[in-house]
Amino acid sequence: MVLPTWKDVDEARERIAGVAHRTPVMTCGAIDREAGARVFFKCENFQRTGSFKFRGAANAVASLSPVERVRGVITHSSGNHAQALALAAKLHGVVATVVMPENSVSVKRRATEGYGATVVSCAPTLAAREETTAHLIWETTATFVHPHDDAHVISGQGTAAWELVSEAGFLDLVLAPVGGGGLLAGTALAVRHLLPNARVIGCEPSGADDAYRSLKSGTRVTELVPDTLADGLRTILGEIDFAIIKSEVFDIVRVADEAILAAMRSIWERMKIVIEPSSAVAVAPLLDGSLGASGLRIGVILSGGNVDLDRVFSADWTAKLHGH
Amino acid sequence: MVLPTWKDVDEARERIAGVAHRTPVMTCGAIDREAGARVFFKCENFQRTGSFKFRGAANAVASLSPVERVRGVITHSSGNHAQALALAAKLHGVVATVVMPENSVSVKRRATEGYGATVVSCAPTLAAREETTAHLIWETTATFVHPHDDAHVISGQGTAAWELVSEAGFLDLVLAPVGGGGLLAGTALAVRHLLPNARVIGCEPSGADDAYRSLKSGTRVTELVPDTLADGLRTILGEIDFAIIKSEVFDIVRVADEAILAAMRSIWERMKIVIEPSSAVAVAPLLDGSLGASGLRIGVILSGGNVDLDRVFSADWTAKLHGH
Repeated sequence: MVLPTWKDVDEARERIAGVAHRTPVMTCGAIDREAGARVFFKCENFQRTGSFKFRGAANAVASLSPVERVRGVITHSSGNHAQALALAAKLHGVVATVVMPENSVSVKRRATEGYGATVVSCAPTLAAREETTAHLIWETTATFVHPHDDAHVISGQGTAAWELVSEAGFLDLVLAPVGGGGLLAGTALAVRHLLPNARVIGCEPSGADDAYRSLKSGTRVTELVPDTLADGLRTILGEIDFAIIKSEVFDIVRVADEAILAAMRSIWERMKIVIEPSSAVAVAPLLDGSLGASGLRIGVILSGGNVDLDRVFSADWTAKLHGH
Repeated sequence: MVLPTWKDVDEARERIAGVAHRTPVMTCGAIDREAGARVFFKCENFQRTGSFKFRGAANAVASLSPVERVRGVITHSSGNHAQALALAAKLHGVVATVVMPENSVSVKRRATEGYGATVVSCAPTLAAREETTAHLIWETTATFVHPHDDAHVISGQGTAAWELVSEAGFLDLVLAPVGGGGLLAGTALAVRHLLPNARVIGCEPSGADDAYRSLKSGTRVTELVPDTLADGLRTILGEIDFAIIKSEVFDIVRVADEAILAAMRSIWERMKIVIEPSSAVAVAPLLDGSLGASGLRIGVILSGGNVDLDRVFSADWTAKLHGH
């Protein structure tokens, strides 16, 4: 297993420049006061397709050989990676196929198709997903782009932290959510090279704490029945991801769903930006004081903003509309 | 009645520089495609206290004479103006009193007190509000700062459009919501001076269309029983505001609550920013095609982002938390 290094992140940076957005770094006095620290938020909710996933996908597609480009790319995902790969492929004139469980939210399916990908349905089991994908790879010889356990993808995700550090300057701590581990691994590669004294901390939902348990035990935990509202983080930590995280990440902290929801609300309310629950996981440890980060300069990767607004707008507002 | 001019807006700009945020101008490819136009959003939801109101309040407070500063400022408001005046006064070391109906949302009362103002409760009628305020003015000799019918306030609100034009360049149209009229009047003063060929259009909820009816009839309509979810726009058009709007504003369009809600959702979803219903009023006419603005360069003032998130987070999310 050849692990990517900071050099791969640096190359990814050049490869995706002009394709991925250079997202803003935002600060907020009210949040700083609450956290007792100076916090720099890297706003990947403003990234194309609404999450950092576009960086990794864009780097993977831009790294294809001419023959691979002709054969296309394929992945299985029902989340942000599907849309990210679909758009990245479209922008490079590459055909993309996405295998999605048939019970996926229809808005995500439509969004992925909207970016030009072919969506293939399968039964809602991991076995069916992998089998369908394997069959399609055999048929089309398309290149499989894993959502997180892939050197190009990890390197691409690391470019967000690279931009964050180049804009914010010295940081004591950098926080990133961890699900499959691509973002956390890429973040660690970038930060540990640019700021050797900074500590990178992964933030994980308590209800999907396989990365936490893997880091503590030293062995990758592959059994998990996720139970968290942070839908982007219900994934098992990947092999390459774990190898990097084990050597470069200082610690992983666990966050309860109540704290995730409270942090999400704080960001919406104070900063007036929409972030998804998975992003809030990296905010919560600052707000509840559990991190002991008082007085520090802290970077936070806000990973995305793809929230199911049906959940928001179906409620009281619409009721109010129809007879207040 | 002496009307403010573009020169007052220009002076306000210098007066509030460094106190008010220079908010970003954002664009969004997806919204552009939907509108068939190039749209520049001036993001006053990122302004201090969460709305453009801070600009007018800061200009009013900064324009006080030394004696007036000692005597303090007073207003009656249950909305964004209350918080804006409270913070502007605090930053200038001036005492602020805000009269609020006793049935005001407690979060707004706390926010206003949080900025250091004294909140005085009164019965929830216009008469009680005015009587309480008049009594306090007599007692304290504080300067009354009207939420919108005030030359300094109007000039301050115009600085948002000034910044928008200086960043976006030529615009065919500029859209702003209209409630009391301070923002629309200030916007018109700035835009008509900087871009004499541009048209300024006010956007008003159908359920509070006094400005529309005033402009059509040429006489200020002062009777209104507002019925709209755009809570910031349930106000009667002011006299000074109307005089400016009559001469500088091209048209006022009316927007149904359904369209306001749909536009708000579009902005949250596509741009990942939180705007309040009052802001969405100026977005809706672009999205439903009613404006016939295809191919134009358009500026939109997103007036604020102070949404009652209880309405959002009380719903399905919290339910999910407690037993999904």
